[in-house]
Amino acid sequence: MTALIETLIDIVGASHVLQGNDLQAYEEDWRQRQRGKALCVVRPGSTQEVARVVKACAAARVAIVPQGGNTGLVAGSIPDESGTQVLMSLRRMTAVRGLDPVNQTITVEAGCVLQSLQEAAEQAGFLFPLSLGAEGSCTIGGNLATNAGGTQVLRYGNARELCLGLEVVTPQGDLWDGLAGLRKDNTGYDLRDLFVGSEGTLGVITAATLKLYPKPVAQLTAWAALASLEDANRLLGLAQRQLGASLTGFEVMNRQALQLVDKHFPHLRVPMWQENDWCVLLELSDNESEIHARGLLESLLEGALQDEVVADAIVAESLKQAHDLWHIRESITLAQTQEGHNVKHDISIPVSGIPAFVRAADAALRAALPGIRFVNFGHLGDGNLHYNIQAPEPSDASAFVRAHEDQISAIVYDMVSKHQGSISAEHGVGELKRHKLAEHKSPVALQLMRSIKSAIDPLNTMNPGRLLVAPN
Amino acid sequence: MTALIETLIDIVGASHVLQGNDLQAYEEDWRQRQRGKALCVVRPGSTQEVARVVKACAAARVAIVPQGGNTGLVAGSIPDESGTQVLMSLRRMTAVRGLDPVNQTITVEAGCVLQSLQEAAEQAGFLFPLSLGAEGSCTIGGNLATNAGGTQVLRYGNARELCLGLEVVTPQGDLWDGLAGLRKDNTGYDLRDLFVGSEGTLGVITAATLKLYPKPVAQLTAWAALASLEDANRLLGLAQRQLGASLTGFEVMNRQALQLVDKHFPHLRVPMWQENDWCVLLELSDNESEIHARGLLESLLEGALQDEVVADAIVAESLKQAHDLWHIRESITLAQTQEGHNVKHDISIPVSGIPAFVRAADAALRAALPGIRFVNFGHLGDGNLHYNIQAPEPSDASAFVRAHEDQISAIVYDMVSKHQGSISAEHGVGELKRHKLAEHKSPVALQLMRSIKSAIDPLNTMNPGRLLVAPN
Repeated sequence: MTALIETLIDIVGASHVLQGNDLQAYEEDWRQRQRGKALCVVRPGSTQEVARVVKACAAARVAIVPQGGNTGLVAGSIPDESGTQVLMSLRRMTAVRGLDPVNQTITVEAGCVLQSLQEAAEQAGFLFPLSLGAEGSCTIGGNLATNAGGTQVLRYGNARELCLGLEVVTPQGDLWDGLAGLRKDNTGYDLRDLFVGSEGTLGVITAATLKLYPKPVAQLTAWAALASLEDANRLLGLAQRQLGASLTGFEVMNRQALQLVDKHFPHLRVPMWQENDWCVLLELSDNESEIHARGLLESLLEGALQDEVVADAIVAESLKQAHDLWHIRESITLAQTQEGHNVKHDISIPVSGIPAFVRAADAALRAALPGIRFVNFGHLGDGNLHYNIQAPEPSDASAFVRAHEDQISAIVYDMVSKHQGSISAEHGVGELKRHKLAEHKSPVALQLMRSIKSAIDPLNTMNPGRLLVAPN
Repeated sequence: MTALIETLIDIVGASHVLQGNDLQAYEEDWRQRQRGKALCVVRPGSTQEVARVVKACAAARVAIVPQGGNTGLVAGSIPDESGTQVLMSLRRMTAVRGLDPVNQTITVEAGCVLQSLQEAAEQAGFLFPLSLGAEGSCTIGGNLATNAGGTQVLRYGNARELCLGLEVVTPQGDLWDGLAGLRKDNTGYDLRDLFVGSEGTLGVITAATLKLYPKPVAQLTAWAALASLEDANRLLGLAQRQLGASLTGFEVMNRQALQLVDKHFPHLRVPMWQENDWCVLLELSDNESEIHARGLLESLLEGALQDEVVADAIVAESLKQAHDLWHIRESITLAQTQEGHNVKHDISIPVSGIPAFVRAADAALRAALPGIRFVNFGHLGDGNLHYNIQAPEPSDASAFVRAHEDQISAIVYDMVSKHQGSISAEHGVGELKRHKLAEHKSPVALQLMRSIKSAIDPLNTMNPGRLLVAPN
């Protein structure tokens, strides 16, 4: 091990090989649920250094855990507790290598923070639409390795759909330069999309070429109150038909979620939550003008009011009001934390199946654990719910979660499988869900995944034990 | 072999195992450039039959060549000349298994003809946007296996982007049911996108769940004349900024391409070709109204005229006129055939690099073969050109092509590589380009592809020798 560390110091310099006890930021996961112990943290400054580090670790048969901003929610980017894994932080590799306004692409290194990437795009008059809560800390490499989602997926897709090309260091330390910014390329297997979402288990993403979009001329936000998820689906259908690709956000929130925001952040003045079971936040992005956008959105909501699809609705009159509405949506997670420990699920269901799923899951959980509270919100347009469970009132939330988390998740995931859904819509698998995955994914799919893992990483040194339970 | 054929007859029935000399429709490729010889043609009627056929062939170590509409352009779906391969036609599996209007998805079997699928979507008020010349004969299974492109990729993506889920029979005859219509699912490696575009070398696609879109309210077509490809790129940028996702088509055609249409189909009345080096066909799809669409398109073109980006432009006044303009675009290939044998390339380049590529490739070819004619057209918005070469006038076109095809393609593909492009943008690799692929794809990418092929199809019975030159 000492020999390996000396080799790593030779490659990246002593100041970029960190050892000792002061590595919490690298060793502990974002939600502070798990902490591992790394042999060392190595911080390469270039793709060539990444390749040399990977080669050295492969030669020593030492595992590598790649890490970006370490904001993942499934403990997929921290080392295990063995003290034998090398934590490779990509955060020094932040360069924007180029922006091509005619091709509408940007090429960046893996460690570029998502917000910096958004700003680089904006300065050139473009939109890079990936947007999520952790954007001030997460890196594009991590976003791609986990196929991150967020609030604009409805229109622009996940990280995968935004990526045209990748540069990857393979588990053997070879460099695959797949960075070309091509919209069409049918020359063999789709390696790009295999590495995207592979959570560091097949190689290290070192750079990417990403799609840009012209910046919309106007963006408007609306808030609507509805009686049911069926009505939310009706409004979604109307919005998709009338607004087309201009509909860039469609977020649903249940009464309980908004009640918690109201309780813990009363200054946010949550509208309409008391009289209605569901509220929806809509976002419209327009290439023409604000007047045009407002006309479209008002016409949609007036029609929906007349047809009794929505009970009430407002269109934000100012950027500040729009920001305030989004802030309510984004405060749900924090309000939940304030309320006490809770059980979170990041699931997806075909959009049409969501009302039936929620009814069935609510009923099954109520029967098992009377009094529990359902905090349910998410990206309805993508069929993606954050279906979370809060302890009954009054109770010791932490004790409740400790006692019932496994039971609750088992009920939810079984119901997800019954409704042809996914137990991880956008957060990934990592360490946290790998055993659940083995239960809920088809054996044929798991076998195919294991074959691919063995073929590409035969020594099993790339983020071993993550995503797949038993690599062979 | 006799025993295998008896087993296949047991599985699918005698009337669906075809033998003998009357198999031209299955054994000859669409362009009639190659003909193979199958051991037999087997036509399973269900996924279960596909799985049993694959298992039987795997047990007998006999290769399978899957085939849909047999409209591919790279000889990837016909048997080799050995007479030992089983040709599996999916054309009996045509069922639409379901259409979910709320989830906006349709689930169809692999043998469903693309046009039937478009019609099923349209009858329910939706658009299935994949659209290409062979849509009356090609099947969705083949479209997915080859990641087909076409004229709407600019807005909706290739076949890959339109696919949410797949049902696949693996080379071992196992069934992977990945049909769920989820917009988000981060539970492991992206198997779907690995099978899409794998050209039948990793398994047999038997069904798919596909995205639908609300049918646009209005569709308008315009024709513009321009002095250069640089101006075409400028117009594309303006159109993307002003029309956003409503821009659903942007096709470029050079003067020579239009001259051939005018020569062989004078009744089509090609506009503006005599005075301008390039023409562009634009399509706008609108969710509001025809008046709104017309206003947008006219405003775009008036601005482009004022800024001297375009020399002249018309917006089609009627559906018939729009259809006529598209008919001109679609007649280029036939006009080329009428003119005589020619050398075709289906390439892509970053959009910004296209003018420089065309200048450089034209110059290199002119220097090598004075007098040759460049028929150049394609999907500029995707960076995808059909960069074709016609023999000099007057000459024996067939003799010219025989003598110079390899030389011409070598010059073109070398220039493509120099400009960070792809030697197959939408047609795939198949048998025709596999040796070229080995020359132009990075060795690391090829090695990754071979590892995946060996892992998933260790017996090398799935469409062997296609896509990859030397499976190991």
